[in-house]
Amino acid sequence: MEEEKEKIQFELTAELIEQVQGFVESQNDKELQKLLKEFHYADIAEILDELNLEEAVYVIKLLDSETTSDILMELDEDNRERVLKNLTAKEIAEEIEELDTDDAADIIAELPEERQQEVISKIEDEEHKEEIRELLTYEEDSAGGLMAKELVKVYETWTVAGCMRRIRGQAKEVTRVHSIYVVDKQEKLIGRLSLKDLIIAKSDQKIADIAKDNVDYVNVTDEAEEVARIMSKYDLEAIPVVDDKQTLLGRITIDDIVDVLKEEADKDYQLAAGITGDVDSDDTILELTRARLPWLFLGLIGGVGAFLIMEGFQEAFGKYAVLFFFTPLIAAMAGNVGVQSSAIIVQGLANDDVKGSINSRLLKEMLLAALNGFILAIFLFLFVWGIKGEVNTALAISVSLVAVIIVAGLIGTFVPLFLDKRGIDPAIATGPFITTSNDIFGILIYFWIAKMILGI
Amino acid sequence: MEEEKEKIQFELTAELIEQVQGFVESQNDKELQKLLKEFHYADIAEILDELNLEEAVYVIKLLDSETTSDILMELDEDNRERVLKNLTAKEIAEEIEELDTDDAADIIAELPEERQQEVISKIEDEEHKEEIRELLTYEEDSAGGLMAKELVKVYETWTVAGCMRRIRGQAKEVTRVHSIYVVDKQEKLIGRLSLKDLIIAKSDQKIADIAKDNVDYVNVTDEAEEVARIMSKYDLEAIPVVDDKQTLLGRITIDDIVDVLKEEADKDYQLAAGITGDVDSDDTILELTRARLPWLFLGLIGGVGAFLIMEGFQEAFGKYAVLFFFTPLIAAMAGNVGVQSSAIIVQGLANDDVKGSINSRLLKEMLLAALNGFILAIFLFLFVWGIKGEVNTALAISVSLVAVIIVAGLIGTFVPLFLDKRGIDPAIATGPFITTSNDIFGILIYFWIAKMILGI
Repeated sequence: MEEEKEKIQFELTAELIEQVQGFVESQNDKELQKLLKEFHYADIAEILDELNLEEAVYVIKLLDSETTSDILMELDEDNRERVLKNLTAKEIAEEIEELDTDDAADIIAELPEERQQEVISKIEDEEHKEEIRELLTYEEDSAGGLMAKELVKVYETWTVAGCMRRIRGQAKEVTRVHSIYVVDKQEKLIGRLSLKDLIIAKSDQKIADIAKDNVDYVNVTDEAEEVARIMSKYDLEAIPVVDDKQTLLGRITIDDIVDVLKEEADKDYQLAAGITGDVDSDDTILELTRARLPWLFLGLIGGVGAFLIMEGFQEAFGKYAVLFFFTPLIAAMAGNVGVQSSAIIVQGLANDDVKGSINSRLLKEMLLAALNGFILAIFLFLFVWGIKGEVNTALAISVSLVAVIIVAGLIGTFVPLFLDKRGIDPAIATGPFITTSNDIFGILIYFWIAKMILGI
Repeated sequence: MEEEKEKIQFELTAELIEQVQGFVESQNDKELQKLLKEFHYADIAEILDELNLEEAVYVIKLLDSETTSDILMELDEDNRERVLKNLTAKEIAEEIEELDTDDAADIIAELPEERQQEVISKIEDEEHKEEIRELLTYEEDSAGGLMAKELVKVYETWTVAGCMRRIRGQAKEVTRVHSIYVVDKQEKLIGRLSLKDLIIAKSDQKIADIAKDNVDYVNVTDEAEEVARIMSKYDLEAIPVVDDKQTLLGRITIDDIVDVLKEEADKDYQLAAGITGDVDSDDTILELTRARLPWLFLGLIGGVGAFLIMEGFQEAFGKYAVLFFFTPLIAAMAGNVGVQSSAIIVQGLANDDVKGSINSRLLKEMLLAALNGFILAIFLFLFVWGIKGEVNTALAISVSLVAVIIVAGLIGTFVPLFLDKRGIDPAIATGPFITTSNDIFGILIYFWIAKMILGI
């Protein structure tokens, strides 16, 4: 058990990395293998992510392909790409042979077009090869792109005893048996069974009699997000995938869905922060610039818009310079309220719990914004009045603030709902997009109302 | 299969809700039962979430407790609270009897203190009662708070045949058998088995011989987030929970982890948008105000800070009113850059892939911000120069912009890293917090540099 304690408490220390680098440098294969044998493949992947390319390739070539195929799957995508470039097509094919079809297809899909065929042709297991070829034909973000061909399938006419005997063979190839799928002679999915049901049943019972016929499934063309929604709503750990004729094609397991959910959450989070594309903090400065600059440019345009508005009101500056000093406050409040209201709608849409009409949403947000705005305006009024002693100016600024907050809340609520109705991902509406448009509208409304109240 | 197609394509329509309401009103129990029988409990929960309290309670009391216990678990937390208030302690106890221990404990924990004991005392199954009592003693966000007592356990000394016989009994109580846990005489966890291993093994083999001794586990006091990290890193679908003496206490399944991950992502997303507390779009205006107002208040204080700075520079810039017209632009850029850089760090920290020293992070962000800033400054320079024809002013504004962007990026990078080192959730550093501080610093830096360049 001592070994196990280490596994859970695995920590990526500088010493450990140095130790591995030392063994690689001195080509001390025996010690290196002994050291790495202790670790889970996910941990070894973490170590390799810290090595340079040459060292990482050395380790990959040293270990057996059963371990290294799993390590490859866990590497950072960029690092995997670099490592694969340094392996021959034959070596990659050997890794592929060890992987389940879904992972195998994912790795091959990452290779450059011309290498894909070369690697596939080097796969020895003909069935594996054909299955991978099939999986590569599906869209990446579809049920077909997520599914694996490995599953346990039985025919309805079999007996429990016969079934047990035959699935012993099938099960060896399947890492985790979640469900046993029951098909008819035409390979159509007609039910499911758990291993537990099989163990509890009498050995002479017919599969058709003990199978559950309420089996959830998805179509091979369904979107990954939809599959994730169904699996998490119905608490499924695996779901079979069928074609339009109900033919059983594969199955999707919950671990793939965990990845889909994580990616979705990451993407929405980044969009809200004004970052496009799937970047992480370890990407290059150029990649990060490409993800960040367009949104900053949008902000720049918004700022120029605000400048033009303020210049339009320039004449008022002489007497009421103080109005201009509050524009950053107005812009900030408009932006913050917009982001808050859009974020809550985007999240509600993602979790599928935004119900009721757009109008009732807008009414609710208006009341909410009015309440928040009123409370904030009281403080602002007291501050301006106290510091400037001008009731009118204080009133003009506070009343405008309430109006700006209400409009900002309405825009923040309306835009994502509108985009969603149009079939556009509402997540793009949060962050810089809402902030920028609210800055401009906010400042415009602010000066209009202030002008009216002050009678400029 | 027809029935099934409906299940997957379940859609919550106004007609369906009206139909249910009609049956409730006319107390047409037979038709109501017939209608609802077609649906999955998660779908029925969606319907109930749309009914008023009286109608929902009517449906709950009509259906058998095996179905309604699952429905209860799927209801909106607020609706569940209201429904439970309308059930007697005895009725709640009947629901509880049907639930797995982890769900049962979660429901009881939501009840008011005084009702908890009353409900527990009404549970008839003594073992279930004791197990729930035990689970209630653990922290909600710990492994103990997530785990269920239901699991399949075998002793190392058993044979495969004996094991099969005995687990037939245990397995009936466990919805999904992920792993069979092997313990020694002292109930210490020493290994695991899959049902598959058991089926493949010969019936006279000893469990000790076929069990895998590399079993991952967590301690009952470990944090939920840590459990989620381990389970998703090592791709586990269930993990056993032990105490300090390695005694097997329970197990956690992947569906609970999916919920933990979702909640975490939702919380981070809301924090980034300036919303605290776990609210959704259907909460009351008062709840939403409580979640949103504090952050807006922070923004108000930031805006007041910006006002004070601008007022301080009023005299200096009598001649350069145009400078003031660019403060919303400067504030927006400082805010956007700060949010971008902090979001990427917060996400990296959450995914555990921020490596290297703080200094190297800051250096990278500085280069990135300088690059972005330089590109944006060129556009701004050309715009101001073109529209105003004053090279000095254009230069002052653009150079300040670069400086502001660099400082904003550094603050956005440093603050979450600093908070994380201090053991504070870095997610609070994104959104309004960073925006507000960057607004103030940004405007201050902007005026300083502009003053220097213009030689005022």
